[in-house]
Amino acid sequence: MAEIKKIKPSLPKGTRDFLPQEVAKRNYIFDTIKSVFRKYGFQQIDTPAFERLETLTGKYGEEGDRLLFKILNSGDYLKDAPYAELQAKNSSAITRHISEKGLRYDLTVPLSRYVVQHQSELTFPFKRFHIGPVWRADRPGKGRYQEFYQCDADVIGSTSLLNEIELTQIYSEVYSKLGMDVTIRLNNRKFIDEFLTRAGITDKKTEVTTLIDKLDKVEWSGEKGIAEQIKANGVSDEQLGLLSKTLFDTSYDELKATFSEAVVAEIDYVMSRVGHLANVQFDPTLMRGLDYYTGMVWEVKPNNVQMGSLGGGGRYDNLTEMFGGRDMSGVGISFGVERIYDVMEELNLFPATLIESTKVLFVHFDEASEAYAFDQLQKVRAQDIASEVYPGKKKLDKQMNYANDKKIPYVVVIGGDEMASGKLTFKNMSNGQQDKLTIDEIIERLKPLPASPKGR
Amino acid sequence: MAEIKKIKPSLPKGTRDFLPQEVAKRNYIFDTIKSVFRKYGFQQIDTPAFERLETLTGKYGEEGDRLLFKILNSGDYLKDAPYAELQAKNSSAITRHISEKGLRYDLTVPLSRYVVQHQSELTFPFKRFHIGPVWRADRPGKGRYQEFYQCDADVIGSTSLLNEIELTQIYSEVYSKLGMDVTIRLNNRKFIDEFLTRAGITDKKTEVTTLIDKLDKVEWSGEKGIAEQIKANGVSDEQLGLLSKTLFDTSYDELKATFSEAVVAEIDYVMSRVGHLANVQFDPTLMRGLDYYTGMVWEVKPNNVQMGSLGGGGRYDNLTEMFGGRDMSGVGISFGVERIYDVMEELNLFPATLIESTKVLFVHFDEASEAYAFDQLQKVRAQDIASEVYPGKKKLDKQMNYANDKKIPYVVVIGGDEMASGKLTFKNMSNGQQDKLTIDEIIERLKPLPASPKGR
Repeated sequence: MAEIKKIKPSLPKGTRDFLPQEVAKRNYIFDTIKSVFRKYGFQQIDTPAFERLETLTGKYGEEGDRLLFKILNSGDYLKDAPYAELQAKNSSAITRHISEKGLRYDLTVPLSRYVVQHQSELTFPFKRFHIGPVWRADRPGKGRYQEFYQCDADVIGSTSLLNEIELTQIYSEVYSKLGMDVTIRLNNRKFIDEFLTRAGITDKKTEVTTLIDKLDKVEWSGEKGIAEQIKANGVSDEQLGLLSKTLFDTSYDELKATFSEAVVAEIDYVMSRVGHLANVQFDPTLMRGLDYYTGMVWEVKPNNVQMGSLGGGGRYDNLTEMFGGRDMSGVGISFGVERIYDVMEELNLFPATLIESTKVLFVHFDEASEAYAFDQLQKVRAQDIASEVYPGKKKLDKQMNYANDKKIPYVVVIGGDEMASGKLTFKNMSNGQQDKLTIDEIIERLKPLPASPKGR
Repeated sequence: MAEIKKIKPSLPKGTRDFLPQEVAKRNYIFDTIKSVFRKYGFQQIDTPAFERLETLTGKYGEEGDRLLFKILNSGDYLKDAPYAELQAKNSSAITRHISEKGLRYDLTVPLSRYVVQHQSELTFPFKRFHIGPVWRADRPGKGRYQEFYQCDADVIGSTSLLNEIELTQIYSEVYSKLGMDVTIRLNNRKFIDEFLTRAGITDKKTEVTTLIDKLDKVEWSGEKGIAEQIKANGVSDEQLGLLSKTLFDTSYDELKATFSEAVVAEIDYVMSRVGHLANVQFDPTLMRGLDYYTGMVWEVKPNNVQMGSLGGGGRYDNLTEMFGGRDMSGVGISFGVERIYDVMEELNLFPATLIESTKVLFVHFDEASEAYAFDQLQKVRAQDIASEVYPGKKKLDKQMNYANDKKIPYVVVIGGDEMASGKLTFKNMSNGQQDKLTIDEIIERLKPLPASPKGR
């Protein structure tokens, strides 16, 4: 660090630092989700932040390719770039000559590569979860970042609907543990197909389902409504009537009566196991991820907050095909942790104790009391109680500020009297109460209550 | 995903996937370290994977600049690149025109930026820890990766030696909790300075200390020994004699007697608090990180394995200067988690139970017994016991293989008899013992023992 050029500290747009209290809250969300994943037998994996560009490109459409962060090759990277394209400043043609790696765009394509690559080392059905950052060169905006976390659980290599049932249970359990009021809507891709066929819509299925999928943002009727837009796809008034009747006027039981047995059986089986969960709801209008999903689909939204999807997922059939893997069906769900954070913050759902860093701070007046405090601290730490002594000589109010700022709930004040008597001043920072206690009595007060059997 | 091009799955060189059992072991290391950091009042922060190149370049020397992974700008990135340099294929001149971001190279420069940028939001002394991947475009090799984790704890804004003492305690406690036999060597940069002055070596201090730092790899005497190399720096035989006497023949107490009071006081104070720890050792030959450190320095090595440093650190004074921050002293330690993993693997130090994913697997023979198993499973999960039912209809031996592969310790077999009697076959997979038990009896067997007061 010979020549230090002073620069103003700042971050690339669309990225964030996390303060200690933010990390504590994010960890609370991650830990809650992980504990449920593990309870259901899912195991954590990890993959590198960057993949070969060959692995990533073509998987997310043209838009996705454009949003991939590409890493410049090391060394003399221009050496083999063609002169003509350089001269033409043809950025898109040059990229493949100067970049071989890209930051991962999601956790699904890496999973696909991983499953094929490590096939012989994995236990199938492979129940894995993966939590980590992904990167997209998207225009940053409110709630939209270039670096954000994804949090996925998938089962690979099993077509059993038990997986669909358990993933629904996981959704229900996680949001309930987080204290969030949500609706978990589910539907089946096959149901959607038959649904349109029954309405006589066979030609422009994709277009029509994409439109129905927008129903929570756009009204059905009106000049720019979904109905008009569907009609613009050549759907007749009669077909549209059938469609709207099915969408809005028909009960679950009535709907089922009109569908083929195989399709109804799938939904019935899943709903028979999860239908009793208060926040789970069959929703025939849920279309989600058309090109990708082939069976059950999920979407989760908060009930009392204006906010997009907090999670989604579905069953897919071609996960490993692109890497030459044998045909394996997969089904998975995803938690939108960034939005979960925002909702919990807005509704004040984080436990207040999260921010507590240590249980107690020892403060002191001089070298002798600092040394005495340090010795007492060792006894507290020997009980595995998180604790601190203020490092260095500062005025008492500065030391108390430190406790306040770090939300440390108790302070032990050590002065001459305390050292002489062995009775230390133990102060409760939330109500100001002070007691004179021995260090053993203090330890008793600080010890955590015995863990309840439900505790993590 | 219209056109799927099949490609062979592979990773960029120098990067790794992690299998579930590897993630479990890595988490064990991270969790152990985190629990100790938290016990001592350190709080976790996070920063983005990439930083502005301006933040990173010039901080790690020329070699470091070369090893930074640079991210290609989005869009038409060649637009403003100068023609002449493109035509000359001058890679190094072009880089700054086509790349503004780089992957972080360590966690220290991001800390430095973070502290200045968030100064008003942080509590000082700022005790933070940070665990995360960093990236270096290094030539990959055995134990050397392009993506690897760093794990740092630092105190910013306090010159108190209590921090040095506590960081030494943290080292001692973490390695002891991991069951690792290590030596934690410490020294003081000021001691080193005076040490050389006393030997009459004032001119080429940096060169000589760098040589002494190699003492654990290169012999002192011999044709290519350190002594000869020191002499080549213009050090006289007499000076060399004084130096070698101090290095090899003088006890700690004798050494202290010859040094200035201020320097001795620092070491004495720290050693008086940590000298009783079995694995802590004052080592006057430890030179570590010359350009950077200004006070105490640490280095940790394993005792019975051929392996480099497992951790190191020290006090530094100019952390925030490069970002225009007010003068703040810092002191920190780092854990070499990748090497810790390798040593623990080699010495078989990971607890066997780590690999256990779930406690019990329910297996079944047909649809009816699967449904029955699913209902029993709900009772087990209601007790927060991690458990699974095999999803789908497979032969019993396939289902048992699943339990074996996932190291699930117990299996419950459900067949017609079990459903009729309510007495389920409970099999211990490690010794093969089978019992007929009700689901309530099974739950009692599976319940974890009450946590000991020392348990995490």
